[in-house]
Amino acid sequence: MKTIGVLTSGGDAPGMNAAVRAVVRSAILKGIKVIGIRRGYNGLINNDTSRMYLRSVSDIIHRGGTILYTARSPEFKTEEGMQKAVNVCHELGIEGIVVIGGDGSYRGALDLSKRGIPCVGLPGTIDNDIACTDYTIGFDTAMNTAMEMVDRLRDTAQSHERCTVVEVMGRRAGFLALHTGIAVGATAILVPEVPFDLEKDVINKMYETLKSGKKHFIIVVAEGVGHVDEMAREIEKITGIESRATVLGHVQRGGSPTVRDRVIASQMGHRAVELLSSGVGNRVVAYKSDKIVDYDINEALAMKKPFEYELYKVAHEISI
Amino acid sequence: MKTIGVLTSGGDAPGMNAAVRAVVRSAILKGIKVIGIRRGYNGLINNDTSRMYLRSVSDIIHRGGTILYTARSPEFKTEEGMQKAVNVCHELGIEGIVVIGGDGSYRGALDLSKRGIPCVGLPGTIDNDIACTDYTIGFDTAMNTAMEMVDRLRDTAQSHERCTVVEVMGRRAGFLALHTGIAVGATAILVPEVPFDLEKDVINKMYETLKSGKKHFIIVVAEGVGHVDEMAREIEKITGIESRATVLGHVQRGGSPTVRDRVIASQMGHRAVELLSSGVGNRVVAYKSDKIVDYDINEALAMKKPFEYELYKVAHEISI
Amino acid sequence: MKTIGVLTSGGDAPGMNAAVRAVVRSAILKGIKVIGIRRGYNGLINNDTSRMYLRSVSDIIHRGGTILYTARSPEFKTEEGMQKAVNVCHELGIEGIVVIGGDGSYRGALDLSKRGIPCVGLPGTIDNDIACTDYTIGFDTAMNTAMEMVDRLRDTAQSHERCTVVEVMGRRAGFLALHTGIAVGATAILVPEVPFDLEKDVINKMYETLKSGKKHFIIVVAEGVGHVDEMAREIEKITGIESRATVLGHVQRGGSPTVRDRVIASQMGHRAVELLSSGVGNRVVAYKSDKIVDYDINEALAMKKPFEYELYKVAHEISI
Amino acid sequence: MKTIGVLTSGGDAPGMNAAVRAVVRSAILKGIKVIGIRRGYNGLINNDTSRMYLRSVSDIIHRGGTILYTARSPEFKTEEGMQKAVNVCHELGIEGIVVIGGDGSYRGALDLSKRGIPCVGLPGTIDNDIACTDYTIGFDTAMNTAMEMVDRLRDTAQSHERCTVVEVMGRRAGFLALHTGIAVGATAILVPEVPFDLEKDVINKMYETLKSGKKHFIIVVAEGVGHVDEMAREIEKITGIESRATVLGHVQRGGSPTVRDRVIASQMGHRAVELLSSGVGNRVVAYKSDKIVDYDINEALAMKKPFEYELYKVAHEISI
Repeated sequence: MKTIGVLTSGGDAPGMNAAVRAVVRSAILKGIKVIGIRRGYNGLINNDTSRMYLRSVSDIIHRGGTILYTARSPEFKTEEGMQKAVNVCHELGIEGIVVIGGDGSYRGALDLSKRGIPCVGLPGTIDNDIACTDYTIGFDTAMNTAMEMVDRLRDTAQSHERCTVVEVMGRRAGFLALHTGIAVGATAILVPEVPFDLEKDVINKMYETLKSGKKHFIIVVAEGVGHVDEMAREIEKITGIESRATVLGHVQRGGSPTVRDRVIASQMGHRAVELLSSGVGNRVVAYKSDKIVDYDINEALAMKKPFEYELYKVAHEISI
Repeated sequence: MKTIGVLTSGGDAPGMNAAVRAVVRSAILKGIKVIGIRRGYNGLINNDTSRMYLRSVSDIIHRGGTILYTARSPEFKTEEGMQKAVNVCHELGIEGIVVIGGDGSYRGALDLSKRGIPCVGLPGTIDNDIACTDYTIGFDTAMNTAMEMVDRLRDTAQSHERCTVVEVMGRRAGFLALHTGIAVGATAILVPEVPFDLEKDVINKMYETLKSGKKHFIIVVAEGVGHVDEMAREIEKITGIESRATVLGHVQRGGSPTVRDRVIASQMGHRAVELLSSGVGNRVVAYKSDKIVDYDINEALAMKKPFEYELYKVAHEISI
Repeated sequence: MKTIGVLTSGGDAPGMNAAVRAVVRSAILKGIKVIGIRRGYNGLINNDTSRMYLRSVSDIIHRGGTILYTARSPEFKTEEGMQKAVNVCHELGIEGIVVIGGDGSYRGALDLSKRGIPCVGLPGTIDNDIACTDYTIGFDTAMNTAMEMVDRLRDTAQSHERCTVVEVMGRRAGFLALHTGIAVGATAILVPEVPFDLEKDVINKMYETLKSGKKHFIIVVAEGVGHVDEMAREIEKITGIESRATVLGHVQRGGSPTVRDRVIASQMGHRAVELLSSGVGNRVVAYKSDKIVDYDINEALAMKKPFEYELYKVAHEISI
Repeated sequence: MKTIGVLTSGGDAPGMNAAVRAVVRSAILKGIKVIGIRRGYNGLINNDTSRMYLRSVSDIIHRGGTILYTARSPEFKTEEGMQKAVNVCHELGIEGIVVIGGDGSYRGALDLSKRGIPCVGLPGTIDNDIACTDYTIGFDTAMNTAMEMVDRLRDTAQSHERCTVVEVMGRRAGFLALHTGIAVGATAILVPEVPFDLEKDVINKMYETLKSGKKHFIIVVAEGVGHVDEMAREIEKITGIESRATVLGHVQRGGSPTVRDRVIASQMGHRAVELLSSGVGNRVVAYKSDKIVDYDINEALAMKKPFEYELYKVAHEISI
């Protein structure tokens, strides 16, 4: 393999830059030329690309976001768009591509692989909702950002003896809510994976801890679960405890990545180049039981990721 | 003066603990006994108080919120509530009170002063909206918290080439929005003090900077100005640039105070005790032209605070 | 088991409070009384203890350090000290103890277990140098603290085009240096596990990257390796590149714990109580392949922990 | 004036980029061309320069360090070097220069002004040791960085009940030590401006607070005062309290600037262009009593800056 491309796709996640850097450096070290593809698959369709050198990725490991930009690409899902992309690859001599993004972007990687451009996917999303991997690039930073924000909410909730209902990201998955919730000592954590009853799972828990003298409460709610404003109103109506809602929102997407995100992203980027350079494509790199592994994309897309029910139980028990 | 009380009232603000600490320590050093009054004026009405010692305020200077708790007190505004409060003061031998809070709490301080309990007010609110002072305890921390959050939003706005519309606190005043807006390099800053036209003041500025190559935009909006969700939709509709709204909310209220908040709060607490201990009450401590000063409460409440139009103009000029 | 004790021993580490909290809450939930033992084993010898309730551990999960204090206890290593400790246990009805600390404190746990007080050890040290576990409480926070400090050093190194030589903690182990070094994109990482030659492993790497245009350099050195001042002087002498040394020092020990430290500490504390409450002692809780497990203390102390040579190699390859 | 230059000189300071950005944007808005001069006065001597546009300063306001690099320039102090610099100015059509740096760099600005290149100096140094101004760009960020590090030291000092002796920057001035010391609640603060006696000013204060129950101590020492390792040993020897020294070092120089640094730097940069564009040179911009002002460079260099003795006294009184 003489030339590879690298792109970021879907929602951005802190650590994507560390992955891009590792891809570029590892490839150049193996004598492979690297083309940076901008704005996801759109960059491939429109030849929005440029050659990357060792120093193109200097001083980016600590930056949030992605220097390659990212975007969704409806055109890429059409036969015509796909063909344009393949043509650009041939034109530029791109013989393999590293795709960093969510599992939506893996389908594109699969399609390109089928058309003779071997692709390797890296899991990049703050939601940790990719089935084949225990860990996705960006998850650790997003959790810590959410936690720091809720730690601030705690100060004011405590001073006013209020209940604070916080929405954290996670439309389809409660991992971010669960870990953040444990970390902030939330009285209740609501996730899409576990059905809940406001009275039983929130209000009653509040009453229980009230008995032991607690007077302020943090309720962490995953985005996918419901409307925090309504929840706060409902809680206030039933308990008489002043309640406020906060939606942490896109702030969770940004910021300088944590050590964990930088290190795992670096390892994954390095592995992706190892795979491509030995002619292996149609794979996704994953993190399983503290090890970097890789799977066939089809296999990866067929996997199911169980929710951490055991951890959820622990969370419930120690938040009294 | 043998005994003084100290309370925090209204919305909590980072640095209130530093002020409480300075009050307690300065008073004890002068041989004055200190009573901590909990939950604002309510604590005075209900005798929810306790003696404070040198070590009662150990290791609190770096904590957000207020260890004395805070609350609004509708009862205190009634003749009956006020009388109860005065009685508790007499009972506990409280001969003067330091009140840390917004200008709402100054009225209570004024009323108590009139009834023979000299009070000194300290400006504590993240909004910096107290007329008599250039600076209120909590303002610097809130600005930096808001700035750090918008810096994170910038990462994702930049990666996706979006417009991010951010609501920062400030129902009545645009100070927080103005300083945060300059600090994050916002394309437009909307404050309650300056009327605006979305087309002229936001959209056209975006178009102008678009010409020079900028593709992501930060619009900072003070709470008092309007609805950021609608604004984002409107901007997207007109410009075609993907736009997202974020409400930073109560996160801005909490967190460990900055150096500036800790230092000025310490100075103000120290000054309050100097005033009370020399028999002077019915004053507010303020920060004017980099100096700690004090005013008669009536005078202070009658003051008007001009908006920083000059700074607003600079902000506009350099955000192109 | 009706009553258990909990203590922290050895160097403090962020997350210890989260572990204490989980121990207290999990035990009380099982109907077990908890005694907090202060200042490590000294507290056991001198009966420096107090009963802990649900609310004794409120609002500590986000605090660095340990609310139980910590200390070394030479007296505990004597037969007499040990006997005093056992007597205090009998006196207070303590039937089991959770010991949070480094592997030094496991020996005490082993000795107490032998004398009929079953103990469970939890790994708490920022160095991650406990053989039986992939992860120790405090490691993630310390890495992130070190990283943030080096990110700041980068700014000034870059502006002045200097070489910055940074000592991070880790007398016996290079884990902290390795992960921090990767995260900051260090040109070279020196750890006690890998012998090095300054000329070959540092200077030559600097020259190599100089060729591609890099003009500032970060060298991360584990405490156990050598003197960073001398190293900086040597580098400057040989290369002519201005070089500065910084010892990050004890700052790395403190600070609010990260999500990872809070969550794993919570899980470990919960597990410790599960073990003790089912009558099992003489165990250490560990983290292996992303799972909470436990080992016999003797076994744990006999284990060897391999250095992450693979990761070290990756670090080397992508830092060009 | 058709073309101006901008350079940063001396030690870098957070906020320099915000100042550069304001200079570039304000000038372009007035129709003035801007040349960025790299590596301080060296860049002028060697014509190490490039044209700056609106977008050259995009997304730098939040970055530490200086995108223009900085360096000392012994050559510039020679007649020959100075002449080269003047020639380069003529060559490039540079009719005025904004110099951002410490008062060392003002002398160069003075010399250039004398030779017909009007210069305006902006105070940029973390030490706040420039006589004519209450505030220097970088001071607020450096204080907050130092404070956050000492807050971390506090955790471990408290857990181990130790004394921590911390050296903060400030060779010639104690401003950083004073403000940081107050903010962290230091038991003693040692600055070059106030002679001290270890026994009387440190040890005795420790004994005093010991009596009230305090068991851990923070001593903040300005760089210019003496050797913290020796001090820690001495304190431990006399008091028997375990003592540790930490030198915060260059970490204090870096990091994303605070709101205050970004805003004041922006205002100062804007003012510098206003001066130059109206033909006024040989000035320094300063911050006096919360206002942006400017002085003749000669006058500015002749000023004396009094130490904040009043604040030092307050610090002493409330740290008991």
